Amino acid sequence: MFFSIDGGDGTGKSTQIDRFCRWLESQGHDVVTCRDPGTTLLGEAIRDLLLNRHDLSIHRRSEMFLYMAARAQLVEEVIRPALDSGKTVVSDRYLLANVVYQGHAGGLDVDTLWQVGYTATDHLAPDLTIVLDLPSEAAAARLSGELDRMEKQGPEFHSRVRRGFLEEAERQAHIAVVDASQDIDEVAADIQAAAAAEMVKAAR
Amino acid sequence: MFFSIDGGDGTGKSTQIDRFCRWLESQGHDVVTCRDPGTTLLGEAIRDLLLNRHDLSIHRRSEMFLYMAARAQLVEEVIRPALDSGKTVVSDRYLLANVVYQGHAGGLDVDTLWQVGYTATDHLAPDLTIVLDLPSEAAAARLSGELDRMEKQGPEFHSRVRRGFLEEAERQAHIAVVDASQDIDEVAADIQAAAAAEMVKAAR
Repeated sequence: MFFSIDGGDGTGKSTQIDRFCRWLESQGHDVVTCRDPGTTLLGEAIRDLLLNRHDLSIHRRSEMFLYMAARAQLVEEVIRPALDSGKTVVSDRYLLANVVYQGHAGGLDVDTLWQVGYTATDHLAPDLTIVLDLPSEAAAARLSGELDRMEKQGPEFHSRVRRGFLEEAERQAHIAVVDASQDIDEVAADIQAAAAAEMVKAAR
Repeated sequence: MFFSIDGGDGTGKSTQIDRFCRWLESQGHDVVTCRDPGTTLLGEAIRDLLLNRHDLSIHRRSEMFLYMAARAQLVEEVIRPALDSGKTVVSDRYLLANVVYQGHAGGLDVDTLWQVGYTATDHLAPDLTIVLDLPSEAAAARLSGELDRMEKQGPEFHSRVRRGFLEEAERQAHIAVVDASQDIDEVAADIQAAAAAEMVKAAR
């Protein structure tokens, strides 16, 4: 099965992805994790351009295509081979993040982003996407260290990001929203419950 | 006006672009030249990933999106501002090259490439594209020095590239094919004649 974990910056994704993978392994899954953008050599080079090269001017449409390029490579090199060999994939972000950050929050056309995204992924979509939801002020307060290009966008951008995730979740059955303001164990339990429900559906 | 010069590797583009720009200047044009991918800081970083990082595995779809990312930046940062201020732009390659190399020769869907390309360029197309045409064996013989990723593709790939350019030229009125097997002055004269005809049309 293919899971992605998404949500705004500072919602606790990294911690919860670790917990979720350990839980999946305890359930007998052979788990492969990846991050989008990233994981492949090309993807990490693109991630560096996108997030850390503060000298570069990057237009919103260029940004979209760079994310798509990284994702196409990730699908071909990592995700599809893992799924084909029966493994369970957990991706830190995926196409939905691109739709929300560059579309809902960034002003590009949302339908175009989905369409270009289907080309990039060759229509490979997660069985379930878990969105960690937190008021943007609380999320911003959790960020620390040097901020990357996305984290540096202002509070108005980040509240558009939050609203974008919630709007997409309302429209799509395979997105589950988890309240990330709860304590870590409660968040982990909600993620496990959502994944377990999806696995029951898939087994039917 | 916006011109692009295209064609297979080894067809003499660089020499002819120099000649063409000098001629345009002699006709009173204020000329801006650029290369696609490239020219912008982001575009040159992407060009380096695409052509010179031989350690990277790059899937054909990733390759397409990297070219699109570079082109989106080039349009916004260089081409559109130059056209808006009344300058004449000459681009070394543009979207057509992407359609031919990754589509006709590389096996990706040609219509998808055009569609994604219209998104990348926000529908900004050259008034005239000049394709330098040369049998692929003759073109290969002209290449020297260390070859980049595209130049390194085999002869079968490069003859698909040639056929792709000719097919697109048959379909589209704004593409002029120039026989690049002629001597340098004759090729330059043919390019000038094609551009002059286009300028007469535009002035009507």
